[in-house]
Amino acid sequence: MRSRNFLSLGLSCCLSMAVCLPLAYGQKGDSLALMPMPSHLTAGEGHLKVDSGFTVGLEGYKEARLELARKRFLKDLSRQTGIPYHLEATEGKPTLVVETTGASKDVQSVGEDESYHLEVTPTNARIKAATPLGAMHGLQTFLQLVAITPDGFAAPAVTIEDAPRFTWRGLMIDAGRHFQPLDVIKRNLDGMEAVKLNVFHWHLSEDQGFRAESKVYPQLTGKGSNGDYYTQDQMKEIVQYARDRGIRVVPEFDMPCHTTAWFVGYPELASGKGPYQIQTKWGIFDPAMDPSRESTFTFIDKFIGEMTTIFPDAYFHVGGDECNGKEWDANAQIKAFMQEHQLKDNAALQSYFSGRVQKIVAGHDRVMVGWDEVLQPNTPKDVVIESWRGPKGLAASARQGNRTILSNGYYIDLNQSAEEHYLVDPLGGDAASLSAEEKKRVMGGEAAMWSEFTTSEIIDSRIWPRTAAIAERLWSPQEMRDVESMYTRMYAVSDKLEGYGLTHQTVTRRMLQRMSGEDDPKYLAVLASVVQPPREYERESLKEFDWHTPLNHLVDAVPPESEVARRFKNLVDAIVGGQASPEQWQTAKDWLERWRDNDAKLEPTLKKSEITAELAPVSQTLAQVSTIGLRALGDLQNHHAADASTTQSDLQTLKAAEKPQAVLRDMVVAPVEALVKAAGGGR
Amino acid sequence: MRSRNFLSLGLSCCLSMAVCLPLAYGQKGDSLALMPMPSHLTAGEGHLKVDSGFTVGLEGYKEARLELARKRFLKDLSRQTGIPYHLEATEGKPTLVVETTGASKDVQSVGEDESYHLEVTPTNARIKAATPLGAMHGLQTFLQLVAITPDGFAAPAVTIEDAPRFTWRGLMIDAGRHFQPLDVIKRNLDGMEAVKLNVFHWHLSEDQGFRAESKVYPQLTGKGSNGDYYTQDQMKEIVQYARDRGIRVVPEFDMPCHTTAWFVGYPELASGKGPYQIQTKWGIFDPAMDPSRESTFTFIDKFIGEMTTIFPDAYFHVGGDECNGKEWDANAQIKAFMQEHQLKDNAALQSYFSGRVQKIVAGHDRVMVGWDEVLQPNTPKDVVIESWRGPKGLAASARQGNRTILSNGYYIDLNQSAEEHYLVDPLGGDAASLSAEEKKRVMGGEAAMWSEFTTSEIIDSRIWPRTAAIAERLWSPQEMRDVESMYTRMYAVSDKLEGYGLTHQTVTRRMLQRMSGEDDPKYLAVLASVVQPPREYERESLKEFDWHTPLNHLVDAVPPESEVARRFKNLVDAIVGGQASPEQWQTAKDWLERWRDNDAKLEPTLKKSEITAELAPVSQTLAQVSTIGLRALGDLQNHHAADASTTQSDLQTLKAAEKPQAVLRDMVVAPVEALVKAAGGGR
Repeated sequence: MRSRNFLSLGLSCCLSMAVCLPLAYGQKGDSLALMPMPSHLTAGEGHLKVDSGFTVGLEGYKEARLELARKRFLKDLSRQTGIPYHLEATEGKPTLVVETTGASKDVQSVGEDESYHLEVTPTNARIKAATPLGAMHGLQTFLQLVAITPDGFAAPAVTIEDAPRFTWRGLMIDAGRHFQPLDVIKRNLDGMEAVKLNVFHWHLSEDQGFRAESKVYPQLTGKGSNGDYYTQDQMKEIVQYARDRGIRVVPEFDMPCHTTAWFVGYPELASGKGPYQIQTKWGIFDPAMDPSRESTFTFIDKFIGEMTTIFPDAYFHVGGDECNGKEWDANAQIKAFMQEHQLKDNAALQSYFSGRVQKIVAGHDRVMVGWDEVLQPNTPKDVVIESWRGPKGLAASARQGNRTILSNGYYIDLNQSAEEHYLVDPLGGDAASLSAEEKKRVMGGEAAMWSEFTTSEIIDSRIWPRTAAIAERLWSPQEMRDVESMYTRMYAVSDKLEGYGLTHQTVTRRMLQRMSGEDDPKYLAVLASVVQPPREYERESLKEFDWHTPLNHLVDAVPPESEVARRFKNLVDAIVGGQASPEQWQTAKDWLERWRDNDAKLEPTLKKSEITAELAPVSQTLAQVSTIGLRALGDLQNHHAADASTTQSDLQTLKAAEKPQAVLRDMVVAPVEALVKAAGGGR
Repeated sequence: MRSRNFLSLGLSCCLSMAVCLPLAYGQKGDSLALMPMPSHLTAGEGHLKVDSGFTVGLEGYKEARLELARKRFLKDLSRQTGIPYHLEATEGKPTLVVETTGASKDVQSVGEDESYHLEVTPTNARIKAATPLGAMHGLQTFLQLVAITPDGFAAPAVTIEDAPRFTWRGLMIDAGRHFQPLDVIKRNLDGMEAVKLNVFHWHLSEDQGFRAESKVYPQLTGKGSNGDYYTQDQMKEIVQYARDRGIRVVPEFDMPCHTTAWFVGYPELASGKGPYQIQTKWGIFDPAMDPSRESTFTFIDKFIGEMTTIFPDAYFHVGGDECNGKEWDANAQIKAFMQEHQLKDNAALQSYFSGRVQKIVAGHDRVMVGWDEVLQPNTPKDVVIESWRGPKGLAASARQGNRTILSNGYYIDLNQSAEEHYLVDPLGGDAASLSAEEKKRVMGGEAAMWSEFTTSEIIDSRIWPRTAAIAERLWSPQEMRDVESMYTRMYAVSDKLEGYGLTHQTVTRRMLQRMSGEDDPKYLAVLASVVQPPREYERESLKEFDWHTPLNHLVDAVPPESEVARRFKNLVDAIVGGQASPEQWQTAKDWLERWRDNDAKLEPTLKKSEITAELAPVSQTLAQVSTIGLRALGDLQNHHAADASTTQSDLQTLKAAEKPQAVLRDMVVAPVEALVKAAGGGR
């Protein structure tokens, strides 16, 4: 499910020069640092102190998971405040009561009641929920409410009625291309819980590696991995860890293509002759399972049977994307099989394969999930389609009667802005015209973290904080589309996520230290704060990358979105629109001067390291672009119309500066272009 | 082993305003970022590239631990470079060969051969060692050699012959007062391995909590802890984890005092009437075991027997410190017992107790270790004395024929400078006059991390990087005493330690965020960079603290030593000594101006948070002190002799500013005093 032609827009994260974001909010509902924003929120008067005497008690229905959630809440609250809390239940009336009505299902199912009611008054707080799922969501909301105030840590008085808009709110992690160790998975599950995501879609097999231990077919990992894989005990541990956090685990074993790793140990499954080696390049490969042999389906049946003993979820993802058909075309036996079964082309052959697999999956009491390509006219109606190729697939599935999940627009590996992802709505675009009945088939969406360019070191910074914005899209009311509010809240939540153990913020500094050999690489940080990785699939066209390529360059260290550049663009918009305050004019000037002057300061650092040497032109371009920006800003401020030739020449320079250098985009170029155009035109 | 009267000197760590430390070093031996510095090092020509093709192979003696060490080395090398390494053994000639002659003991013992030879040439590298212990030390040295260069990551060509000066190089962690979770212990063992420490002294019982699960006496943790303790499996896991890193684990169960937690579940052990509660205050408490009852020793015998099944080390620490004797004085039965056994005072009673315990320990094939107080004229010669009360105890033990370990001077909870610890030598002071035979009894030393003011959140920042300096003292030649070289190398190693998973650097920023509610609390960081916690036991006299007190204030967030203030002091020394360059004059002025101007910028932040509100006077004092400093600096620069009354008045102001505010010391005061005195006197 990787494609090369998408459309999108363009935006950051916090380095040492980043701008302050206040975490302490006022009483107005939409200024609270909540993400996802609750569906109904009424601000009250005053606040509830969260001091050493703060306690939490459970009422009503009880189970071990709720007690674990209570303790986890207190631990997180300790991390958030530095106040030590006793984890044992205490006597007396608790400050926060969690009142749960009944159990949730033994295996968490789609559409279970996740709603909760949270009331905070100056003297106490109460969460009411029908199930532990809602209770846990309420606890997360309370954690987000807590902020430092002149009166100590406190939660504002508030009444919240909250329930999710969609039942399927997922994050997919590709552990196939770059393996992701257990602790990475766990801390990302912690992050998911914090923003109320409820599905962990675990992509466990790829051309580059098979990552799930099979005892029936041990060579799947024995030969099909480099030794990095999850044992069955570890996968069970993750299932339990996720369940404790109200998260379902949907495993994916991608077939019939993306299957090279299966064939290294079991070449008899393949349509080609073999022998096979694990792929170490990125891209789409020819190897495909052989649908013409019964033994293929026997293998799949046994394998899926084994995996369902580990993954209790009602849904089972079998991939089904990106078959190029080359091995099928080259195999005479398969050609004969297609003729015999009147399968007119490879799409029909894949459809036949999917149909067989669907029966196997159903035979193990599971609902099959597959990518777009699985949808054919005769696809059984209970198959769930995950739409990745474009906005139309989702609507088409729903019209055809299949339930569907949106992943297109939520590909967080493509270095798009939080804004872009945030504004993609599962019921927007083509889906807006669906009937009410059809709309019900849209179950939700999933952020998809493909891992060609993502090691375990940097994966957190690719997932967070942008996935919090997607989580809000999938939880909160459709009409919530205020992008500035989203960014403010997202960065506030980002700080909390880092506090819970994610590393998306600190990794940048550590990598800048490493690549520069400096303890405080402040000038490199200035450059880092305004560059971004290329968008979508452009990176692959700029430089050769494969599994062996170290992801230790600036493009890997910087977050997918530059918050500094986004703020600079906002300043420029205000200036060009004639709305800028004197402070905004000054800030724009200060920033441009800093970027202009940074090159000379950074130059000695760059030369000291092979990794930073390639950044010399990037730094020079930033200085050049900033110089142009200062000229244009001055002209605008002095109401001096720039002459046409200067404007023309500057725009040409900027055009050239748009081109990535050292696989990096200079995010100051576009706003400076806007300044130059404004200075050159009509003022 | 906590006392209230010590003597000592006075010095930081890196915040966002901290000064750059180059990590890439030249070819000169003492400029390499090695800590501890090897005993013999000869620099060669050129360097060995550490790129994607780098491999490591084992030769000679092999065991599972060496293979684990090889993989851990490659993982650390990946973390240090961002280059992915395959962990499986590869074909062909390895870049780095580790050649080991033979095994080390099944249970690592004191005095095993830890030496290694490391030769790095531009084409390859070889470690030769008699045992896996030396091989692992060699791998750590190689990791420290790797730095970024214009030719990529590389290790300089070098020949190293290395062996430790002392056989006992320890870190004690007090898990009794504040419990330290398993991951904290593990990452600190990683840090110990990196600086070649070889003893983890685990303080497992205290008045405030019993932390080791006993199956024979389950109420030791059942009633004697708040639920935070290590299970037997977890303790075994730590023993194995430590052994894999060449580290012995010496458990300590402190008796007969510091034993309140034992008595909550087993009051029959106590000399008082009870009932007992876990202590939640800090200090010295009355409860003491009853040496007059045989049942006490039966209990101890069974308990130590159980613990020796978990801790295989030949040494067993039984504490023995700080008995105030009050419960003994108040117990008639004990008084009678003393008379009957001709024990003339409480010291004699404790000596009797220690003698009994020593026999129990010996009965379980262990050597007893105890704190100073255990040493009595008739103490058996195989008892090891850990000297904590002063420099004299160590020499006294050695003279009396007992082996001894120095802990006095290495109390890293007392917020002394790395320099102070570094210059304390186990064979310095009183020990310098020992005979050669007596000197052999000095086994080494231990950094001691008592945890009254140390939660699991901040413990790394209390231990690191200063413990690296102590590790060098215990490993490297005695004549190595260049403090500036030590600081440069210590901060370089500090960055690597953070890269290996310790959190001593990042915790400060996160806590400043939390206490201010700001994403980038840059003005608070400026203040934080020049203040320190009070030295030694002064903190307890400034404010009430107990187990419930949140350690979330600036005093807890800042490192024990301000690196910025230390550098400022160096600048002032150069200025006052007439040795300062124009750049140094300018830097001193820039810094003083920044500190002077910071108060106005910081003021709005401070008011927003209850936690930061108390810092207003601290910030104002910094401004005031800096203003005085600027005046004096100007006078010195202009060769203008300050008039006596100005000098007098400024010195009075500075005297007042020396007093801690908000439990914080302003580390700029002393250097500014030096400036004022220089400006006022004789120029």
